[in-house]
Amino acid sequence: MKKSIGAKTIVYPTPVFVVGTYDENGKPNLMTVAWGGICCSSPPCVAISLRKERHTFGNITATKAFTVNIPSQSQVAVADYIGCVSGKQEDKFAVARLTPVKSEIVNAPFVKEFPLALECKVIHVIEIGIHTQFIGEILDIKVDEDHLGENNLPDIEKVKPFIYAPDRNAYYGIGEYLAKAFSIGKEIKKR
Amino acid sequence: MKKSIGAKTIVYPTPVFVVGTYDENGKPNLMTVAWGGICCSSPPCVAISLRKERHTFGNITATKAFTVNIPSQSQVAVADYIGCVSGKQEDKFAVARLTPVKSEIVNAPFVKEFPLALECKVIHVIEIGIHTQFIGEILDIKVDEDHLGENNLPDIEKVKPFIYAPDRNAYYGIGEYLAKAFSIGKEIKKR
Repeated sequence: MKKSIGAKTIVYPTPVFVVGTYDENGKPNLMTVAWGGICCSSPPCVAISLRKERHTFGNITATKAFTVNIPSQSQVAVADYIGCVSGKQEDKFAVARLTPVKSEIVNAPFVKEFPLALECKVIHVIEIGIHTQFIGEILDIKVDEDHLGENNLPDIEKVKPFIYAPDRNAYYGIGEYLAKAFSIGKEIKKR
Repeated sequence: MKKSIGAKTIVYPTPVFVVGTYDENGKPNLMTVAWGGICCSSPPCVAISLRKERHTFGNITATKAFTVNIPSQSQVAVADYIGCVSGKQEDKFAVARLTPVKSEIVNAPFVKEFPLALECKVIHVIEIGIHTQFIGEILDIKVDEDHLGENNLPDIEKVKPFIYAPDRNAYYGIGEYLAKAFSIGKEIKKR
């Protein structure tokens, strides 16, 4: 039996995207975002949602660019720190001892120490409510060479990303391999 | 050392959203979507991206409503089946032996057998490229009572959702609890 729990922002999974930007003076900043996801295959695009009062909001508005960095589960404390403080108060790269690498493609820095980075140019801005959605076209992805798998794609079992669970404000790792997509469902046929 | 792999739609995690809709005649359909995520806290909203040729695209355009259903990892084959065939060819509810429940709030059905359902009214439609993004305001969430945890919220450890890994077209479960959010990061301070 299902129970109504009201209008809430609970779904599974939500990601842990560490968003990299520059301010107007070229100072790098980071922010942790759980509201986002891929939103188009061609052009390849990723969406992130931010509140207007965020330091990163002003940065993206000025530069029209951002990176989405995926931390590994051993980096969970650093990713959480980035979500706990504002770039208005602290130099988060310095405090977290992370290294900003200037993208050669977009006007945004990516994180040297995280295994995966998407370099994005803003192509749509949608005012939804207290969050504004920025849709970024993914112009390139940078991956640590030792986190690549077959076909030169990142390997989820090497990257070891993690998720955010909004029901209890907690982080969880990725679990066991379950099944091949577009394959296991073929067992289910008209009977 | 990081390597460029080009402009691709690879990020972690991506979700497995089973989207429920009615067609103009009230016939229910389901579709599996990996491009989506929460996009606003107030009003609470979730975004899903679809190609125009999908049966669900026509349904949402007609009804301005959809549900996002979260299957449990024991239901991975059913969720994959829903992503393998079109509602133009098959009655996916019937073949997968799932039960459509008419929402009392929006003009869309949710799946009785899946533990969690978000009932959504379309408030924005954004043409991005080959995908169109539908932003749905979450008007209510229905949860199986035995999947609720403390505070009447769904419990990720009871729901046992799973993720889609676009690097290898595979499904993975949710893994171990890692840390409390907005908490573990506080260990990292200016030194």
